[in-house]
Amino acid sequence: MVIKKNRSRLKAETPKGFRDYFGNEVIRRNKMLRTIEDVYFRYGFEPLETSAIETVEALGKFLPDIERPNEGIFCWEEGDDWLALRYDLTAPLARAYSQYRNKLPTPYRRYSIGPVWRNEKPGPGRFRQFYQCDADTVGAGSPAADAEICAMLIDTLEEVGISHGDYSIKINNRKILNGVMETIGLNDPNFHDEILRTIDKFNRIGLTGVYELLTEGRLDESGTYIKGVGLSDDQASRVINFLSVSASESDGIIDALRAIVGKSEIGLNGVTELEQITHLLAAQHYTSDQIQIDPTVVRGLGYYTGAVYEAELTFEITDDKGCHRQFGSVAGGGRYDNLIKRFTGQQISATGISIGVDRLLAALATKQQQTTDMMGPVLVTVMDRERMADYQTIVTELRNNNIRAEIYLGNPKSFGNQLKYADRRNAPLAIIEGAEEKVKGTVQVKDLILGAKIAETATLDEWRERPAQVEVKRQDLVTHVRTLLNRE
Amino acid sequence: MVIKKNRSRLKAETPKGFRDYFGNEVIRRNKMLRTIEDVYFRYGFEPLETSAIETVEALGKFLPDIERPNEGIFCWEEGDDWLALRYDLTAPLARAYSQYRNKLPTPYRRYSIGPVWRNEKPGPGRFRQFYQCDADTVGAGSPAADAEICAMLIDTLEEVGISHGDYSIKINNRKILNGVMETIGLNDPNFHDEILRTIDKFNRIGLTGVYELLTEGRLDESGTYIKGVGLSDDQASRVINFLSVSASESDGIIDALRAIVGKSEIGLNGVTELEQITHLLAAQHYTSDQIQIDPTVVRGLGYYTGAVYEAELTFEITDDKGCHRQFGSVAGGGRYDNLIKRFTGQQISATGISIGVDRLLAALATKQQQTTDMMGPVLVTVMDRERMADYQTIVTELRNNNIRAEIYLGNPKSFGNQLKYADRRNAPLAIIEGAEEKVKGTVQVKDLILGAKIAETATLDEWRERPAQVEVKRQDLVTHVRTLLNRE
Repeated sequence: MVIKKNRSRLKAETPKGFRDYFGNEVIRRNKMLRTIEDVYFRYGFEPLETSAIETVEALGKFLPDIERPNEGIFCWEEGDDWLALRYDLTAPLARAYSQYRNKLPTPYRRYSIGPVWRNEKPGPGRFRQFYQCDADTVGAGSPAADAEICAMLIDTLEEVGISHGDYSIKINNRKILNGVMETIGLNDPNFHDEILRTIDKFNRIGLTGVYELLTEGRLDESGTYIKGVGLSDDQASRVINFLSVSASESDGIIDALRAIVGKSEIGLNGVTELEQITHLLAAQHYTSDQIQIDPTVVRGLGYYTGAVYEAELTFEITDDKGCHRQFGSVAGGGRYDNLIKRFTGQQISATGISIGVDRLLAALATKQQQTTDMMGPVLVTVMDRERMADYQTIVTELRNNNIRAEIYLGNPKSFGNQLKYADRRNAPLAIIEGAEEKVKGTVQVKDLILGAKIAETATLDEWRERPAQVEVKRQDLVTHVRTLLNRE
Repeated sequence: MVIKKNRSRLKAETPKGFRDYFGNEVIRRNKMLRTIEDVYFRYGFEPLETSAIETVEALGKFLPDIERPNEGIFCWEEGDDWLALRYDLTAPLARAYSQYRNKLPTPYRRYSIGPVWRNEKPGPGRFRQFYQCDADTVGAGSPAADAEICAMLIDTLEEVGISHGDYSIKINNRKILNGVMETIGLNDPNFHDEILRTIDKFNRIGLTGVYELLTEGRLDESGTYIKGVGLSDDQASRVINFLSVSASESDGIIDALRAIVGKSEIGLNGVTELEQITHLLAAQHYTSDQIQIDPTVVRGLGYYTGAVYEAELTFEITDDKGCHRQFGSVAGGGRYDNLIKRFTGQQISATGISIGVDRLLAALATKQQQTTDMMGPVLVTVMDRERMADYQTIVTELRNNNIRAEIYLGNPKSFGNQLKYADRRNAPLAIIEGAEEKVKGTVQVKDLILGAKIAETATLDEWRERPAQVEVKRQDLVTHVRTLLNRE
């Protein structure tokens, strides 16, 4: 290991692509994580916490960016092993389930919440460490398992504060696409991956773009010519027909899909599964604005084998450049019946969802215009350095009554500095016990929030009615503080 | 990167020294983490979450094992940087505070909760990833800051379930030891580190062992001769005198310490700080069985500059070999006034504590004999595969009433398997709606906990009085389930 030798002064910097989260950022995220966890738990899911480090082998090459499967992870050699930081929570689940499957119930419903790491180029709002909240059901091949995951996703989004109407879950089934490819005579799995990747670009390049890339090729925005997959016009048209099927079909979307896959057995299976999932969700009174079939949703990951789902936020936000745009995807998942086989040798069904919490938090912050800081602790000021024990007694009394409080621990010489500190901490109240108050058995309670309001806008009458600083008996302090805090 | 080529079947294994945490293990730990967080928060501390990865430079060489400062971390080269997983939460605090100090309040009280990684030899109960819960105050040199940390540590231990009498916080001050060394003419800092390391072995080798290692040397248990520091008998005796000072001194421990440091200014400062800390804690009614001065507590870390503290659990446990022993240390910390200087160039006071949550959990598990599993979800069984929507409706109804519930998602053919699954999940109740019940508008509610009791011990009368399975009207299901769950 080489350590740079400049010992004069170290640079205090997070490594490139990483960041720190302070105070309210952490509190808001933890609140969201707990809400999500509560929903998962209520659905009967159990927590599983694997370590951040896995062997590179166990993780496998299943990174979302299927065009560069070897990149994207942080890894290093350690003795005989190559170790890596997990890049998602699905690969560790596959490993842990395989390792402990004899001790676990089957089906096994588990949730995992924690950071994952991607060795990707960072960008605005794109960091190399971020949180995922996953829930998966292993060992259940039934579409009821997929339906449950979708229902849980809807409940989760609503409980964290995304209103009905502001999101939409789109579902599809990979088997239908496989069926379409079968009917047009494309049986080479390599073709499948290429076509998947092409369809995955739909949101960016539209149907025309997809058509061009499926056939000859296409001129990129940057002017680069991208070679196409090489399908015939007829083949490409039939893929495009599939992608264009929408809920407005006269015979209903399920019948339209069934017509498109023709006699393909796998295709028909896919349609039937999709039908069962939507049937079960409708029986639970989920509506078509909450969840709908969308053939253009394929999800890039190579390991999906059946149902795929994606949650999009549908409200508009104003981006950094002042443009209005939809917020886009905040969660996605699907069925992966072959992933665990890598360890067990036998096929084990699995389906699940991953919520990108940091994106969801960003969306909520934009939507709810969270600008105000949360209230800080009550500040007990220090008027006489020799009487620290008195101030400690006050602060202990407040804390013992479950009031968040702190004593000023800086140099108490300047009272102005103490009030500046209170301001920086967003303290609602400052408690003052000078020599005079001590003798009288009283304390001063300064209402800093009201004080700030008075300074800005309040009239003299308002100030008279509710003065920003009052003197109360020492023994009434806790009661008085509680009354003021409840009023804020 | 070299990946092993054997593609037949991957081994499902955590890397050496890592483990998975399932279900109740995660729930118990999260409960403890939240309790600790609540106490820290009530004391006015703010959360800070830094990323798991830091530059090797920023972490510095401050691993607890000061004999091998270069080892112990997981690190790798990434572009121009060497990156590493954090090995504690103090080094990242020093980096983050230095990076953002202009935006942060001073003093800055922060807590951090999260995993840290050590590249050390794993052993029984010793893993390479474990949780720490830290709270530190940066920018406050006052002993009141140390007293606050100690008070908070006591409150935290009691709130997580360690009773008064089952723990003891031991405090000391490095400056006193420095004073002792000054009085015996040892001014070489290299000596200081060696003497620190020797005293740190006190718990294992006792006063005689420390004396031997301070002078000539000592024969290890393994038969190896360890060379001593080389102090004269007189010098070593005076260090031993200091270590032997105890609360039972006739003139009080503070006076005894003051006598030992003689005219050493730094030594006298240390005694005064210790006196102020104990004075403040006594004023808050903390007692000498909760917190006491112990000169043998020095803590290995090189960066401490003043007060040091350590929390020990004092109750006896029976270890793997059947021996009774005390559980030992679960938390430790102290003042480190020079650590942040590495980044800022100017001295910034700081003091804090780190709680080892996994050890604390292990202690509580031993103490409370936690063997029973927590209650699982209510299981809705599947009697007729075609009526999944009905069962989904039942399970949704339960969940909407905040009752944790799940539907059986395995192959429903064998009802016995469904009940075995319920057993494995520790389900309290199973709901059964067969064709007959459907027609009658009823459901069967099977009390699995009572059923298990009956199978083991209950008499026929008990069974008649409270049958393990009852039929209730479908519309009364939620009420009935709630009543039964409240009874368990």
